[in-house]
Amino acid sequence: MDLSPPQTVYMKKLNKTKVSKKKAGKTKADVGAAKARAPTSKARNRQPLEAKLVELKRRLLEISDLEAVDSVLGWDHATYMPKGGAAARSRQGAMLSRLRHERSVDPALGKLLDDLMPYSEGLADGSDEARLIRVARRDFEKAIKLTADYVARASANSSASYDAWTRARPANDFAAMQPFLEKAIDLSREYASFFSPYEHIADPLIDSAEEGMTTEEVRTLFAGLKRELRPIVRAICGQPPPSDACLRGSFDESSQLAFSLSVVKRFGYDLDRGRLDKTHHPFCSKFCLGDIRITTRVNERQFGSTLFAAMHEAGHAIYEQSIAPALEGTPLGTGASWGVHESQSRLWENVVGRSRPFWEHFYPVLQDRFPDQFRKVGLDTFYRAINKVKRSLIRTDADEVTYNLHIMMRFDLELDLLEGRLRVKDLPEAWRARMEADLGVAPVDDSDGCLQDVHWYGASTVGGGFQSYTIGNLLSAQFYGAAIKAHPDIPSEIAKGEFGTLRAWLCNHIYQHGRKFAPGELVPQAADAPMSIAPYMDYLHAKYGELYSLPQH
Amino acid sequence: MDLSPPQTVYMKKLNKTKVSKKKAGKTKADVGAAKARAPTSKARNRQPLEAKLVELKRRLLEISDLEAVDSVLGWDHATYMPKGGAAARSRQGAMLSRLRHERSVDPALGKLLDDLMPYSEGLADGSDEARLIRVARRDFEKAIKLTADYVARASANSSASYDAWTRARPANDFAAMQPFLEKAIDLSREYASFFSPYEHIADPLIDSAEEGMTTEEVRTLFAGLKRELRPIVRAICGQPPPSDACLRGSFDESSQLAFSLSVVKRFGYDLDRGRLDKTHHPFCSKFCLGDIRITTRVNERQFGSTLFAAMHEAGHAIYEQSIAPALEGTPLGTGASWGVHESQSRLWENVVGRSRPFWEHFYPVLQDRFPDQFRKVGLDTFYRAINKVKRSLIRTDADEVTYNLHIMMRFDLELDLLEGRLRVKDLPEAWRARMEADLGVAPVDDSDGCLQDVHWYGASTVGGGFQSYTIGNLLSAQFYGAAIKAHPDIPSEIAKGEFGTLRAWLCNHIYQHGRKFAPGELVPQAADAPMSIAPYMDYLHAKYGELYSLPQH
Repeated sequence: MDLSPPQTVYMKKLNKTKVSKKKAGKTKADVGAAKARAPTSKARNRQPLEAKLVELKRRLLEISDLEAVDSVLGWDHATYMPKGGAAARSRQGAMLSRLRHERSVDPALGKLLDDLMPYSEGLADGSDEARLIRVARRDFEKAIKLTADYVARASANSSASYDAWTRARPANDFAAMQPFLEKAIDLSREYASFFSPYEHIADPLIDSAEEGMTTEEVRTLFAGLKRELRPIVRAICGQPPPSDACLRGSFDESSQLAFSLSVVKRFGYDLDRGRLDKTHHPFCSKFCLGDIRITTRVNERQFGSTLFAAMHEAGHAIYEQSIAPALEGTPLGTGASWGVHESQSRLWENVVGRSRPFWEHFYPVLQDRFPDQFRKVGLDTFYRAINKVKRSLIRTDADEVTYNLHIMMRFDLELDLLEGRLRVKDLPEAWRARMEADLGVAPVDDSDGCLQDVHWYGASTVGGGFQSYTIGNLLSAQFYGAAIKAHPDIPSEIAKGEFGTLRAWLCNHIYQHGRKFAPGELVPQAADAPMSIAPYMDYLHAKYGELYSLPQH
Repeated sequence: MDLSPPQTVYMKKLNKTKVSKKKAGKTKADVGAAKARAPTSKARNRQPLEAKLVELKRRLLEISDLEAVDSVLGWDHATYMPKGGAAARSRQGAMLSRLRHERSVDPALGKLLDDLMPYSEGLADGSDEARLIRVARRDFEKAIKLTADYVARASANSSASYDAWTRARPANDFAAMQPFLEKAIDLSREYASFFSPYEHIADPLIDSAEEGMTTEEVRTLFAGLKRELRPIVRAICGQPPPSDACLRGSFDESSQLAFSLSVVKRFGYDLDRGRLDKTHHPFCSKFCLGDIRITTRVNERQFGSTLFAAMHEAGHAIYEQSIAPALEGTPLGTGASWGVHESQSRLWENVVGRSRPFWEHFYPVLQDRFPDQFRKVGLDTFYRAINKVKRSLIRTDADEVTYNLHIMMRFDLELDLLEGRLRVKDLPEAWRARMEADLGVAPVDDSDGCLQDVHWYGASTVGGGFQSYTIGNLLSAQFYGAAIKAHPDIPSEIAKGEFGTLRAWLCNHIYQHGRKFAPGELVPQAADAPMSIAPYMDYLHAKYGELYSLPQH
């Protein structure tokens, strides 16, 4: 697969040739036929760059495949691996990270991208190839800042930390996690240091999730959101809460999983290219376009978390399953950003999955599945129960209204840890204090506090991720609003258990493009406006105004 | 991890120095303390070779880990992968094969082994390090004969072929498999060509499984065995067959899996370092010493195949789980040969799992698990049913007496294919003719004929493997006989559901050594005699002489 030595051929010029051909009245077929003939001198000139593009894609596919293989190891670790496998698995994951990193920073890749720049500048800005070269170049320039040693240490710590967390959470043993988290914070600072100078230490971390976004921008956005949310939460929590007793009882695992699977299948999650398994912490994992898996957790004493987690992960999976096949194996073959990705998990989980139209169709199906539990419970009672707003401890179980308070607290705590204003050993106490202040409740133990989810214990860095959950919430309402504006009959289709029109709109405007467009481009294209908190606040006021008395909007 | 340039230091001399230290009356602790002090000139001399040994182990561990990662992909492919994942999985497997191959043939590895040869010659012949260097060198010298391109093509064909076979077997569609098998035969010939000159084209393939064994030796062994087996099969099949009706009925999947799991756990299969899943074709897969998994198949209309396949794979797994941890991640950290490995699967499946003492303990447990099916069936009837000898179509379901006839037929057909005397398209007909001649039955369709198992459709080469099944049968009886000779109370322990004495003997004499000793060394060490057919024939005569009238032995 070795290439002949690079030649300086400017594709800008070549592209102009192409345009002039079109102007001369030649059709696409003519051009194709000309290509099929023996190479002209122009074709010979183009050859080296075409070969370079092929070579670029081959290299990117290998990087993508190494990541996919690592994801298979990760999925297996979380689902079926016996505990004896942990040490070697961690070592094997570190090896794959190193191999991937070596390839991501190979100077030959940089040279290829340099050579292809003039070519990409001559292409239409929205073409797959122009975008591929641009994004691959950006990824390369970020990757070469990290050392191989850093990548291996970060991978080894996250894998060992994840393993320890699966034991520490049930044991309520924060002390066991303290060294791992301290190391993760150090690794996060080290990560940021590769990108200095920066305005804020979290900027390089946030940029990994939301291209171009800064700590300052997130703070401003969150300050506005907090201002608007506070009076709603105060108003709702001052009213007598609806009962959610109907969600507690006995709900056997296999029935919950079967019902969840039937729902996500109806959403459009393709089971020939995916599957649902059970894990501690739900996730979506992609091994290729044809194999994108989701997991959910199971609590047999309560109805809801299994289903809503499955819907959530299916949202991520449907997005990935719908990316244009032409983008597969390239850096464009994934979601636009974490926030945009999260907008789809939250759209399917909340905007659709907790909506009244959805349950008009599915509640009778659920009653058939769990007759003893739901036969005597009316739709309205059930709908109020699954949308009950309350001050609660666990982020992933939080309702749509208070959820963002959890996120904003996590975001602030991460900044405090990164800035060094908060020491890891003081985290449990800081967590309790902030929960009390922001949500009016505080956990008795760390299992329901700062150990409650895997985020700080299973990733190679801490910080720069949580903001995307709230961005996802904002965008879920914004995108759904745009889809409804284009197709006002979407809610009535949902009430028939049909999701085709909504899914097609999302696919056309978001999914198929993968990472071709940065969020700052994609959101205005899809929603006719830049990201803002207004559509989300409108959505909350409309939905929760019907369930509770709310202050004037 | 880069090493300083190699230095010519003869470890033979160094080793003598070590011995003289001991002679001078220094204790181990003294030597350790001396090591901990500032390096003496002798220690400085030793340093480069010690560093080379560390570097050798690091390189071997990476090769072992790449193989392990590929095994995780393969296990997932066979167990839980959705069908959409096949194409990418095949590509990813080929990539891992290529990466592993690159490392296995790296000239730097060869150089390290060259440099370490004088050191290894100075070590005690039976030491781990001497053996490691010898075996790693042999593997290296074999590996450098293969091209990277060949390795990638072979891996891609086996993966695509496996995938096609999972569809072709139920569809009875040999035509679909013909091109894959033709390619596999071509690849096998190509493999052999890398090792020419050879006496027989199958010699290099057999050598991969049984170090040093030739086609001629296998033919001689098999001719003797066939001569002894033929009169027994004729005698048994001329008698009224015992009924095995009690094994047919309804046996639900989860109960069969649970019973199988409870049995292999009692054998000593450690579930903290393994698990049991369901696949088309049962197998054992190793990802590290702490994660060695087995699979079995399930037929709910029949009792036996689920359990015996689980016992069989557990035999492989217990062997691997018992290898000395010091050998992990090196070429010594696996079984001595395919035949020795198979001796352990057959020992646990047949010699133990189909023995009367085993069922004296477990039959009441089985009756409790399946009361409707077995309550009224006596132990003797059940024991005769699971040991019924009959002319049958499916190798893996064949009884102990006729099983080797299947193997010898497969071995001959493989030789015919490799020699070019049989064309792949004529295989179904040749299969039927040989089955009729050797076993007196012939399959109606290819699903029960030449498509019946994955061997020719899931491996990168065809040929050189099947002989090891019969070698395994021979050795299972030979090793068991040696264990009984040392501990005559083993059968009475088995009758109490205890397997500790047997397992400890196997561990001491076989398992712990991994691949330290070639089969030609290991068998005489463990069994006090070289491999022969006599112990196996004695075993068959003793067991089946009680069940049937047999000709004089």
